[in-house]
Amino acid sequence: MDKIQQMIANIQPLDETAMAETRRRQDHLTKPQGSLGQLESLSVQIAGIKGNPRPRIVHKVIFTLAGDHGVTKESVSAYPSEVTLQMVYNFLRGGAGINVLARHVGVRVVIADLGVASKMEKHQHLVDKKVAMGTQNITKGPAMSREQAIRSIEAGIELVEDELPRGIDILGTGDMGIGNTTSSSAITAALTGADVVTVTGRGTGIDDDVWRRKVEVIRKALETNRPNQNDAIDVLSKVGGFEIGGIAGVILAGAKYQIPVVMDGFISGAAALIATGLSPLVKPYLIASHQSVEKGHRVLLEYLGLKPLLNLDLRLGEGTGAALGIFLVEASLKILDEMATFAEAGVSEKIE
Amino acid sequence: MDKIQQMIANIQPLDETAMAETRRRQDHLTKPQGSLGQLESLSVQIAGIKGNPRPRIVHKVIFTLAGDHGVTKESVSAYPSEVTLQMVYNFLRGGAGINVLARHVGVRVVIADLGVASKMEKHQHLVDKKVAMGTQNITKGPAMSREQAIRSIEAGIELVEDELPRGIDILGTGDMGIGNTTSSSAITAALTGADVVTVTGRGTGIDDDVWRRKVEVIRKALETNRPNQNDAIDVLSKVGGFEIGGIAGVILAGAKYQIPVVMDGFISGAAALIATGLSPLVKPYLIASHQSVEKGHRVLLEYLGLKPLLNLDLRLGEGTGAALGIFLVEASLKILDEMATFAEAGVSEKIE
Repeated sequence: MDKIQQMIANIQPLDETAMAETRRRQDHLTKPQGSLGQLESLSVQIAGIKGNPRPRIVHKVIFTLAGDHGVTKESVSAYPSEVTLQMVYNFLRGGAGINVLARHVGVRVVIADLGVASKMEKHQHLVDKKVAMGTQNITKGPAMSREQAIRSIEAGIELVEDELPRGIDILGTGDMGIGNTTSSSAITAALTGADVVTVTGRGTGIDDDVWRRKVEVIRKALETNRPNQNDAIDVLSKVGGFEIGGIAGVILAGAKYQIPVVMDGFISGAAALIATGLSPLVKPYLIASHQSVEKGHRVLLEYLGLKPLLNLDLRLGEGTGAALGIFLVEASLKILDEMATFAEAGVSEKIE
Repeated sequence: MDKIQQMIANIQPLDETAMAETRRRQDHLTKPQGSLGQLESLSVQIAGIKGNPRPRIVHKVIFTLAGDHGVTKESVSAYPSEVTLQMVYNFLRGGAGINVLARHVGVRVVIADLGVASKMEKHQHLVDKKVAMGTQNITKGPAMSREQAIRSIEAGIELVEDELPRGIDILGTGDMGIGNTTSSSAITAALTGADVVTVTGRGTGIDDDVWRRKVEVIRKALETNRPNQNDAIDVLSKVGGFEIGGIAGVILAGAKYQIPVVMDGFISGAAALIATGLSPLVKPYLIASHQSVEKGHRVLLEYLGLKPLLNLDLRLGEGTGAALGIFLVEASLKILDEMATFAEAGVSEKIE
């Protein structure tokens, strides 16, 4: 818990002076004020995060964390549990969606095993942070012990800290875990107070019957475990997942080290609920890359007060949306850095 | 008119065979079917446009067209008319928003004068397609003659044809013209039948009083000129602009030459209304990059049945949204081309 406390105690509010200076520069660039919308506000946010009115991004990293879920025994997913393991090997070979989009955007991907339910082969690009061989079935009891929940968050923090020497100017989060939309819906219901029906979606693609079962499974998990809404670690341990705890740790470390955090979809959002539950100061460090098809994602983005950048009906996870979001953040900083001012370009300003 | 007829007569419907093959490949890639949302459907659309089930994009071009508007005499804009000219010079020096985002995405930008209201200095990167020194004041009579409307569309077609030898795998549209949201609102009202109030926005940033005047100006322009809803060229000549006609020509040529057309915001949308008014076969070639803050844009996107990719509150124009949209289309084709299939990756398929 010391490592988590150390993060929380050292998260600074954004630098208002840097933000004001960035806002001022944006207002003198050759465009109507505010006409680049979120490309302007993103640049101001990044300036505040980094304490630098004209920040640049060179090193981009996505952390894609994998873990298995005991609740898959309740047949809530369209894919068998072993797909988690198989997809991690796919990541390592470069054949998955996240690999393609990371190459497109020029992002490094850190792949970590937080709790895959099988022993994984050693691989130079796989970081072993396994907490356990998957979570327990949340309809029968807690997903994990409190100690394991803490350990998963700490493991996420370590992932970021281990990567710092290679440079991280911006980070994205990603997940892989068959069954983890069930866990994320349970977390969202527990922490936002929303009804289970309004935060439960189709996951990897289930039909109406399975969806109804999934809702019942989540209801039962919440009734069985009674997670404490005011204790994010309790919620994580009762109905969460190891990769979700890990992502919460990545987010905490991002905030602590003044690194903008570009969230992927629903699972990253559930992790952000855990992280902001631990410290509300995390919130201004977050950027929502897209709004997932998973209906709980909209609920939690509204709860967090975040507006998604992309509108692509994504629901893959892995960090795919985060990769595209990072590209848009880069665009916002290039606008700030490279556009001419009215004075430089000899363009007339607004009629007052 | 021959050149326009020649385009219209040669627009093919999308290639269903190529699209089915792309759809099939998408369904075998290592992700739940449909989980990459519009990144999947975009790849299918591009396959259909190009008649190639696995198309690639190398050459990307944005056409940014400039023109002035006589209606600025009615004080409907927050910026003086000479800003059109000044911004074109800014484009040529590389200091504008479109230059920054085009470099970010790796897009060539073709800048053309379709009707700037001043004589422009010659420049190796400025294409002179000037139809006239700006349009007439649409509250007093038509913006331009029918011949000029045809000429502006033809000029847009020529821009694409002149660029074809350098390669165009995808194109984007962009505009510069103080006063052109007034013209675009009038076009949108005329062609969709929507009420003027619902399609008139704040342009470069006008206050309530100017907005009310702008609504009255557009009403007066429509009453004075009575554009014929069933004759897109009539609408263009009565209340349009030279850059808008030019963009309509770029769109027609895109469709004719099987090049995907990534539209920018409201002005490109108004041009798309003109182009689809000339031939509904144009529609499947269109991709909406973003939804502008300009309220008429939503109305026309719904009318055209297009779903925007980005959610960034942009309202700059120039092709800025199109540049980012092109990047997303590229992402969709890389997903199609580079992702592993379930069989290749040894990943278990969906439980049936």
